[in-house]
Amino acid sequence: MHNIGKHLSHINLPEDLRNKFSINDLPKISNELREYLIDVVSEIGNSHFSSSLGVVELTVALHYVFNTPYDLLVWDVGHQAYGHKVLTGRRYRFHTNRTLHGISGFPTRSESEYDPFGVGHASTAISAIVGMAIASKYKGELDRHHIAVIGDGALTGGMAFEGLNHAGTIKDANLLIILNDNCMAIDPNVGALKEYLLRITKQKITPENNFFEALNFQYFGPIDGHDVLKLAEKLEEIKDLPGPKILHCVTVKGKGYKYSEEGNPPQWHAPGAFNKVTGEIKPSQQKEQEPLKYQEVFGRTLLELAKENKAIMGITPAMPTGSSLNIMMNEMPDRAFDVGIAEQHAVTFAAGLATQGLHPFCVIYSTFLQRAYDQVIHDVALQNLNVVFCLDRGGLVGADGATHHGAYDLAYLRCIPNMVVAAPMNESELRNLMYTAQLPNKGPFSIRYPRGNGVLESWKTPFEEIKIGRGRKLIEGNDVAFLTIGHIGNDAQKAVAKLKEIGISAAHYDLRFVKPLDEELLHEVIAKFTNIITVEDGCIAGGFGSAILEFMAENHYSTKVMRLGIPDEFIHHGTQEELHHLCGIDINGMIEAAKKIV
Amino acid sequence: MHNIGKHLSHINLPEDLRNKFSINDLPKISNELREYLIDVVSEIGNSHFSSSLGVVELTVALHYVFNTPYDLLVWDVGHQAYGHKVLTGRRYRFHTNRTLHGISGFPTRSESEYDPFGVGHASTAISAIVGMAIASKYKGELDRHHIAVIGDGALTGGMAFEGLNHAGTIKDANLLIILNDNCMAIDPNVGALKEYLLRITKQKITPENNFFEALNFQYFGPIDGHDVLKLAEKLEEIKDLPGPKILHCVTVKGKGYKYSEEGNPPQWHAPGAFNKVTGEIKPSQQKEQEPLKYQEVFGRTLLELAKENKAIMGITPAMPTGSSLNIMMNEMPDRAFDVGIAEQHAVTFAAGLATQGLHPFCVIYSTFLQRAYDQVIHDVALQNLNVVFCLDRGGLVGADGATHHGAYDLAYLRCIPNMVVAAPMNESELRNLMYTAQLPNKGPFSIRYPRGNGVLESWKTPFEEIKIGRGRKLIEGNDVAFLTIGHIGNDAQKAVAKLKEIGISAAHYDLRFVKPLDEELLHEVIAKFTNIITVEDGCIAGGFGSAILEFMAENHYSTKVMRLGIPDEFIHHGTQEELHHLCGIDINGMIEAAKKIV
Repeated sequence: MHNIGKHLSHINLPEDLRNKFSINDLPKISNELREYLIDVVSEIGNSHFSSSLGVVELTVALHYVFNTPYDLLVWDVGHQAYGHKVLTGRRYRFHTNRTLHGISGFPTRSESEYDPFGVGHASTAISAIVGMAIASKYKGELDRHHIAVIGDGALTGGMAFEGLNHAGTIKDANLLIILNDNCMAIDPNVGALKEYLLRITKQKITPENNFFEALNFQYFGPIDGHDVLKLAEKLEEIKDLPGPKILHCVTVKGKGYKYSEEGNPPQWHAPGAFNKVTGEIKPSQQKEQEPLKYQEVFGRTLLELAKENKAIMGITPAMPTGSSLNIMMNEMPDRAFDVGIAEQHAVTFAAGLATQGLHPFCVIYSTFLQRAYDQVIHDVALQNLNVVFCLDRGGLVGADGATHHGAYDLAYLRCIPNMVVAAPMNESELRNLMYTAQLPNKGPFSIRYPRGNGVLESWKTPFEEIKIGRGRKLIEGNDVAFLTIGHIGNDAQKAVAKLKEIGISAAHYDLRFVKPLDEELLHEVIAKFTNIITVEDGCIAGGFGSAILEFMAENHYSTKVMRLGIPDEFIHHGTQEELHHLCGIDINGMIEAAKKIV
Repeated sequence: MHNIGKHLSHINLPEDLRNKFSINDLPKISNELREYLIDVVSEIGNSHFSSSLGVVELTVALHYVFNTPYDLLVWDVGHQAYGHKVLTGRRYRFHTNRTLHGISGFPTRSESEYDPFGVGHASTAISAIVGMAIASKYKGELDRHHIAVIGDGALTGGMAFEGLNHAGTIKDANLLIILNDNCMAIDPNVGALKEYLLRITKQKITPENNFFEALNFQYFGPIDGHDVLKLAEKLEEIKDLPGPKILHCVTVKGKGYKYSEEGNPPQWHAPGAFNKVTGEIKPSQQKEQEPLKYQEVFGRTLLELAKENKAIMGITPAMPTGSSLNIMMNEMPDRAFDVGIAEQHAVTFAAGLATQGLHPFCVIYSTFLQRAYDQVIHDVALQNLNVVFCLDRGGLVGADGATHHGAYDLAYLRCIPNMVVAAPMNESELRNLMYTAQLPNKGPFSIRYPRGNGVLESWKTPFEEIKIGRGRKLIEGNDVAFLTIGHIGNDAQKAVAKLKEIGISAAHYDLRFVKPLDEELLHEVIAKFTNIITVEDGCIAGGFGSAILEFMAENHYSTKVMRLGIPDEFIHHGTQEELHHLCGIDINGMIEAAKKIV
């Protein structure tokens, strides 16, 4: 059991906070909440950490002043909402955070009435709260307050601006935006607006050019986001002012825990388990000899290629550490860019670079490329520009859950003309695909790899060009053929080995490309096999297997094809292994499929 | 032949403008260019009009002052770039604007070196020009200027803000944004930023809170965008100042032509042919007795439903006239919203409304919903909210061309869990789908219809609930079955009739839903037919036909299926009929397909 502070132990719901305590108790409650978060998160690991520490006082003040859940409170992104979860009836389940059947790492409507809007991706809260505020106005619920808490990082996302632009016109709605300004996304925040906010907070006065007042907001602040009494007073003071308001709170990410306050911010964003006394982060499960992460292979390989090819540029929307683009950024700061949480800009910025003969690599998490779908089609593919999309965290990502799985990319990319859609089965393949993509005039080229480790002992294999659309036969067989795409092919290999033990002779082909398909190889496969199983760590509807079916229909083949992949439903959180099992795309699922089809 | 002014006749390229004329000639050249545009566009019709009139002086001044094409000039959206096209070597082809094999209505890289970036969708220019500016910096081309012209309407798109946020940090790049401020998108512009700009231009001074200076831009203006001499002087004055600059030009959309200046702005955005002397717009091809446009049926039906169902709200991102949401906006201003060119916000705003028990209809052109793909997945579908997406201009749109075809929607929507994907074959079906979608708890529901007219004499049929996932058998047959989705089913009906004349007995099924599919009906079809042809006005890769193949694979059917749809390439401009023919999805294409398969 975790230590629960004396006050905190009496708070199961925000009503308790409001009814049992006075404003003077808030500092103690904040301290207890902070201690509790440090206690639990350090032990369970697998969780986000410093974001929630930075808003402990804000969380307590908001629930103290506002009548949640009647008043509607939306946390943008949601990494910072752990304190909120603890105060809203989920303390007893908090240790199950991000585990299979446990609570979600993000606010989620299905989990609590205190979570009026599910979040995960950045910059949505303002739009959501504008909808809620207009709904209340329309329904005549004029006493209801609507609060969105958004970080300065999330404010760099264009949709946040779209929301502000609408919100600023609603003169009679009760709408409060809390700007949680800590100069951080996961990595340090970037951009002109961040520089602007920094000027404000350094001077501790509102500057001459008030960005928010220009957009019709009443601006309050900057205010110390760790002074819970002042926060509560200020919230009380402004809560019933009509119209759009913004309260600019200055906070410190990781506040109140020495090591996270002073340490490397990205590391403490989601540190895993750690010794709370010494601040020592427990080594992750990766062992010295284990294969590198794909991310690391990407980062190192890009630098290696960029040293040879002066046209290569690197771009990440706010994930330098997560994607490992920081490796190139550190060595080549004039050629690698963090553009903020701004996927749309990232892609069209890349297109702009490409028109001038450069060869940008845009590394974006699969789930976040959804944000720039139009830009991929309209600005890159239509103009057939040499932009390489490295889709990080393709497939099921594990603990981040439904908002973050890279489930749809193969389906939403393969319908785009000119787009190459590739996925490497291992580190060497990733390197070769990256090498191939940066050769002249390959056009729009997407390379998708999963979250996590590769499979090779030695990742740094020599570069070799891969013919675009050329797959590989890996294992011969007679009874059934596995056609796989990407890293999941490694599990298929294991399934094939086990099938052999029980007398089923399975072949294995790594297609490498969803588009263009290796038609020659497919003709060969179909000539030999009457049973085919396709396997992808992506949605079944419209994905890789579907592309195979299209090939077969075009060629009038009638071979039996079973498609394994992510079923047509939202998959929640758990380990990657658990989720693969759930979806029937683990080794066992493949074995069962083979038994069934043969 | 069109009248070409004395000066204009000597200008084939901007070099001519710069070399043959002095600054004092610019007013006359501007007048001649304006006259020429009025002359040609009034005659050819089929074109955009008032946007280009509003930037005649800007166009002349920019090409006079800057060394295009070495200096890079990007027009956001591109509706306003006709003058630019005339001055950059395309005067002789200008009368072919937007016709098959003619020039594109938008700047296009493949068309001219003076078009460094292809456009069409709004808000991309800043990101593109930032890419170009950084490329020049990296390449050491420090004398190159980079100019983006963007309207105040396009500035409401979040990606424009993302671009500004990056641009504001590039202290040493030569980057100039021209804000073409006319208070208009296609309809009047909306939002807090527009109100802000209006305060500036009314006062003719920079206000206290300078939005752009907050973002590190040097701000110049407001300046009269129709005073070509002042414009040229100002551009000359600021062009070599280092760092990001913004020049705020106040213009009048439709400037210099009495009827467009004084008339109804949306009407003069793209008026078709008109009598340039009287301002009389020539009646479109639609005759009194012809069926209504789908857009009009949507608009009237939504109002009708909203009168009965108080939960219904309407949302459009900047297309009230184009989508006909203006019908509801006029009668129910508190329930129907134009949120600006802000598709992302539109969708998540809808989600916010839906969480409060309202039932929003979000009407978005298919091609623009690409902008909000992540919001559809993450904010609506994942939360299984009751949001209806009316996808206007699904399929090939005709003259707007490659940037605007609604080609990918069926593919990119059907891979999303919880999402209903429907398309009506006629007005009555559209009404019934809309009626069905607004019944309680139908979840995320998309309804896709094309640009243009329906087929019924009388559109206002009584409402009838359609069982979700239920298709229809329309024509019995024996030799081959057509499975169609949406309006193109009407052409399939005609093809079936003609096939009968030549002795081929074809059946016709209108599936209505791509997702969920009518499995019962499909079993019935497959039991009877060995030859199936699917037809969709959408991309073949991953679309409706692909969904049919998935059904067949899951059920171990081996019926021969031929899929007709938009091939895997970008389709350019022409009439809808011409493009359907090009793609083999016109009546003749279907007949040929049937002959081939039987």
